[in-house]
This record gives sequence, structure tokens and C-alpha cells, in this order.
Amino acid sequence: MSIRQASVTAPVNIATLKYWGKRDKNLNLPTNSSISVTLSQRDLRTLTTASASPTFAEDKLWLNNKPESLDTPRTQACLADLRALRLQLEESDPQLAPMSTWKLHIVSENNFPTAAGLASSAAGFAALIYAVAKLYELPQSHTELSKIARRGSGSACRSLFGGFVAWEMGSQTDGSDSQAVEVAPLEHWPSLRAAILVVSDAKKDTPSTSGMQLTVQTSDLFQRRIEDVVPRRFDEMKKAIVAKDFAKFAELTMKDSNQFHATCLDSYPPIFYLNDTSRRIIKLVEQVNADGVVAAYTFDAGPNAVIYYDEKDESKVLGEIYKYFSGVDGWNGKKFDDVAEEQIPGVSRVILTSIGGGPQVTSESLIDEAGLPKSAKSV
Amino acid sequence: MSIRQASVTAPVNIATLKYWGKRDKNLNLPTNSSISVTLSQRDLRTLTTASASPTFAEDKLWLNNKPESLDTPRTQACLADLRALRLQLEESDPQLAPMSTWKLHIVSENNFPTAAGLASSAAGFAALIYAVAKLYELPQSHTELSKIARRGSGSACRSLFGGFVAWEMGSQTDGSDSQAVEVAPLEHWPSLRAAILVVSDAKKDTPSTSGMQLTVQTSDLFQRRIEDVVPRRFDEMKKAIVAKDFAKFAELTMKDSNQFHATCLDSYPPIFYLNDTSRRIIKLVEQVNADGVVAAYTFDAGPNAVIYYDEKDESKVLGEIYKYFSGVDGWNGKKFDDVAEEQIPGVSRVILTSIGGGPQVTSESLIDEAGLPKSAKSV
Repeated sequence: MSIRQASVTAPVNIATLKYWGKRDKNLNLPTNSSISVTLSQRDLRTLTTASASPTFAEDKLWLNNKPESLDTPRTQACLADLRALRLQLEESDPQLAPMSTWKLHIVSENNFPTAAGLASSAAGFAALIYAVAKLYELPQSHTELSKIARRGSGSACRSLFGGFVAWEMGSQTDGSDSQAVEVAPLEHWPSLRAAILVVSDAKKDTPSTSGMQLTVQTSDLFQRRIEDVVPRRFDEMKKAIVAKDFAKFAELTMKDSNQFHATCLDSYPPIFYLNDTSRRIIKLVEQVNADGVVAAYTFDAGPNAVIYYDEKDESKVLGEIYKYFSGVDGWNGKKFDDVAEEQIPGVSRVILTSIGGGPQVTSESLIDEAGLPKSAKSV
Repeated sequence: MSIRQASVTAPVNIATLKYWGKRDKNLNLPTNSSISVTLSQRDLRTLTTASASPTFAEDKLWLNNKPESLDTPRTQACLADLRALRLQLEESDPQLAPMSTWKLHIVSENNFPTAAGLASSAAGFAALIYAVAKLYELPQSHTELSKIARRGSGSACRSLFGGFVAWEMGSQTDGSDSQAVEVAPLEHWPSLRAAILVVSDAKKDTPSTSGMQLTVQTSDLFQRRIEDVVPRRFDEMKKAIVAKDFAKFAELTMKDSNQFHATCLDSYPPIFYLNDTSRRIIKLVEQVNADGVVAAYTFDAGPNAVIYYDEKDESKVLGEIYKYFSGVDGWNGKKFDDVAEEQIPGVSRVILTSIGGGPQVTSESLIDEAGLPKSAKSV
């Protein structure tokens, strides 16, 4: 019997209303709803091939050409959920191959350096879940699949959609209503752009999983954020997106990034993700926005900046960024006139990208006929 | 008629429960109560001579040998209050010289560089108010005088006492109950020490007066702090001081510093006072405290660190600080064995000091017989 396989790509998403805090650690249920923008897979994506065969002896994963364990509780939970759905299909149609009982070989590659700290786990889990779902020919909607991805990595649920995505926190204890939904598709606002400034930092502070637990347990301000501030912003941000009101969207995005980092600082011991370079980037964006808001910064659990803007303001926004970072890689031939004498140190590269679509099936496969990773050619 | 004069010194105080936010800008009424430690005047003090004479043509001030304006609303409010109290005395005893109608010459000097960003305005206003009160022979208590100092610079009210001082926010709209009181005198815990790490920063962020207004107006987390967190901490910190419970005192101090900076970051646009050097100092103190809390960091509206510890832990605390800052000035001959190969950059000097007493009358005068500043000898 031959090997069955399916290949997909999935995008990175960057939250504009931040997910920080779990109310259930096993199920990855968040303390608050969140919103993100999906980035273009031209620049940032995970490509994953999932294959199944009765000849495979065990579940195996290769990540960026290295064998990795699938034996983590989170990944196991995802695979168990997917196999259970496949089993339902098989039970209703005895003609189907009993793939739910077969072992899986999964090969996954990012087209960007994992070390850049660019939320690769979100794209990774979204691609994993979507590839296996396609392999299993599951009929479930993206929102249904998002609940499975959520168990792998919370923010992965948002990478099941393109455009603007909301992760509704839900209220059920079993997580059955904690899921991603589309706020607006890519086509609603295709001119939205993102410039990522990759900030090099000697050491990263606390990993996000333990960091968010620390915040939940020790920040006296955190309750206010999740009870009062985020629910209000969640509605306001969705409205701003639907209305394509960039200034409002940007203000909420910047405020929410700041507040997330404020609750990190209010944790005990305090967690710092922003450094002096991040701080200078914030001031730079304030400078860009001096005559009207055309750019929005946001920072995840690390010092990298993502700056959103609309294509029509490109020369203004990128021109000002270029001034202070003209010397780094990633401008792809773009040039602007002004270069400041004193460049801002601490940024290793810029990634120019844009809003993008959701996961896609692809004909590019990473697995050969023997069910093993093809050579390292695409890395 | 000869010139009358009085000279006093007043101390710097460093808040352990932070004052940040005014509910009345004119009266300097705070949004929350605060607590501070008064530092020793051996190391940090303002010396002020106040003189009055019917021959003086106008109120005049010299600050660190430079003429400065007394014509600010805050200083005028302080002088008006003091003159009103003097006038009451004169009205009850016609023998008294009518100093309330005479102009004042005031000369003031710090024994530390003003530019170091060390809350010099608190010591300055406390010394000004106390010197004029002594000149006027006012019978008012230090708590009564603290209300006048408060109008000059909020935190100045706490410099009217030594030891541990509480500024009770009060509830009256006229500010009549917003005043400083002693929590415990110097003698209660004389072994408390403070190491100040003066952090050099290119540019200071927002001045504190406008910064705190911005936080009050824009931080969504700020209300939680002042309504819920600070009232609880105010009681807990007073208890920890009375019990000489250093670990508890330290934890509250560090948490409150972090939370103050968190509300700054939650302001819009965000305010940053901590920089990467401050952040490394926080990590260093965490390292010192790994086996038990013996040191407490706190940061005001700037990157300078003040680290409190008890004398008995000096070798542990200073030894660890010395490791990373052995090359800077201010160790006064103190030496420790370990010096790290990689020193932490960004600190220009260390000031080793301790808890200290309140304002004092001194025989040292800064004004000559003509009512003018003596030569620059003491600078």
C-alpha cells in the first residue's frame, strides 16, 4: 500500500490585540480575546507535508531538516483530535482507508529563520493541523480546525485564516467555543503593509508560556486589563477594521502593545521584552505620526517591532524608517533619499511584507516516496 | 535695621511607594498616598539660608550660585502661605518685627550635582519652607509645614521628616489633610542603607509633572492602581516598616517601582524612564536576592537606581554590585574581591548612603551682612 500525503502552507500572524494569559493551561484557553493580522506567505510561511502509511512504525516529525519530537502533550492532543475526526469519517464510510490507525510522518520547513523570534510556532502548528486535516480529508471548517490548532499553540488558531482574525476567548470550560473567526478577509484591506524590524538581543527574557502564567499570578493590574480594557478594545478594533479606519486601528494596536508590556513589567519578578532599541523604534513611529497617524507599532514577547501602515503612506513611513536603518539587510532594492548620520543600532534586518491570505494546499511536497524528508534543497 | 536670617539643611527622600498622579494640579494634591525613606544629609542635602530685611527691594533667590526666579506660581504660593502664618504671629504680638511685609533673599546650595536627577526639588522646597519658617519663628509642626512644602513640589512634603515618612493623600478639596507624617524615625531602623547607581542617559523622557498628568488621563490601568493596589500597599508597607520586616518591605518597594513604570508604559504615548542599564540592575538585584531578599531596587522618573539594604548584608549586596560597577566613582575606598570581566555599562557613579534624619537648623550661613550670597567657596 502506498503512502498518502498532503502538503500545505500556513502564515504567520501578528496580534494587534494581544493574547497574554491562559485560564486553562492544558486546553490553551485564554484569559481574553485577541485580534491579529495574517502576514503574506510570500515572505513568511511554514510549508508542511503530512503523510500516513500502514508501513510507518511511529509518528515522526522533521522540522527545518532536523528530527523533532512529536511526543509533547500539546502535539499529542492535536494529533489525537485529528485522528478522532478521521475515525468518525471512516466509521461512516467503510470504503475509506483506515488512516486514523496509521502512523504519521510530518516534514515542516519555514522560509524564514526560526531564531528571528517571529511567532513561528503559530505558523508551524497551523500548518501541521491543516496538513493532517487535508491528508485525512476532514470536512471541518477552518473555525473548527482552529480549536485543534489552539491546543498546540494558542495563537496558532489565528493562522487558520487570512486577513484580520479574531480569537474569541469563549466561555466553555471544555474550550468548545474558544476559536478563531474571520473579522475581514485579505481582500477587504489588501493595501495594509507590515515592516518588521528584527532586533538582535543578547538574551531573550522569560519564554511566553511561563511569562504569561507569571503575569496572571502576580500582576495586580492584569485583572483590570482582561475584565475591563480588552473587551472594550476587542469591539472597537473590529469596528475600526471593518471601517478601514487606520488611525483608530493604529491607536488601539499601539496602546494594546504598550499595555501588554506594562502588565509584563507589573509582574513579579518583572518581565522585559522591550529594550532600548524597541524604545527608539516607538519614538520613531511617534515621529512618523506627528502630523497624523499613518503607522502602528506592535511588539510581541520579544524586542522585534512590527510596523503596520497602508501602502499609500509607504514613502512617508518607510522613508522615515530607512533614514535610521538604511544599513541593514532586507530593503529589497527599495531606496529613499534621507539617511540620518546617526543610525539606530540593534536591528539586524528589516522584513517588508503585507497582509496575506490563509493556509493553502500546495503541490510542493517535502516527503519522498519512501516517506522520508527529501534532501535539504529548499532550505 | 539689620538683616534677619536663618539657615537649615533638608534631605532628599526616595519613595518606596510611589507618588504618580495629581488630583489637583494647583494644590499638588495626589491621586494616592505614598511612602519614602529619607536619605542621610551627610551625602545628599540642600543647605538654604533665608533672610529678610526692610531694605530688600524684592524677593530674590540664588540656587547653586545662580540667580533664579522666585516668580513661579508654586513658589509664590509657598511664600504667601508662610507670610500669612507670620502675619498671624505679628498680629498676636505687636513686639514682633513685621517680617511678613519684608522682602526675602534666599540662597540655596546642594551638596550633590543637580543634574544627577536625584529628586533635588524635594530637598530644595523642603529647605526653602523650613528656612523661612525658622526665620519667621513659626510655631507650626512639621506636618503643618509639609502642606506648604507640598504646594511647592509634591514630594517635598516628605522631606520635612527623617526616617520613614508617609504622605497621606487626604480627602479634602482644599488640601488641608494632604500632609506628611512620620511612620518611624531614623532611630527605629538606623542600619538601613542605600546605594544609588547614577545612570547616564542621553535624553530624559517626559518631565514628571507632565508625565503624571498624561498617565492620569490616558492609562487604562492607572485607576486600578490608585483605587485598589496602593491603598493596600500603603498599609502593608507601614506594617513592614514598623516590624522591620526587610523582605516584605523590599518586595513591596520593588513591586511598586515596577507598577509605577508599568502605568507609565500604559500611558499614551508611552513614557519610558527605565533603560537597558536599569533593566540589568533589576536583574542584578534579583541575582543578589536569589537565596533570600536582602536588597530592594526602586526607580523614580529616570533611569537611576536606588538600592536599599540592611547594613548586615552590606558585603553581600555591595559585593555583588561592585562586581559589575567596580570601575565607577563613589566607592569611597570600599573594595570587594570579585570583579566581573564584563562590567555593566551606563552607570557614571555610585553614591553610598543611608537612611537619615529630617531638616535641621545650622549655623552655616550662605548670606553675608549685605544680604547677598557669600562667595562660591562652598561649591
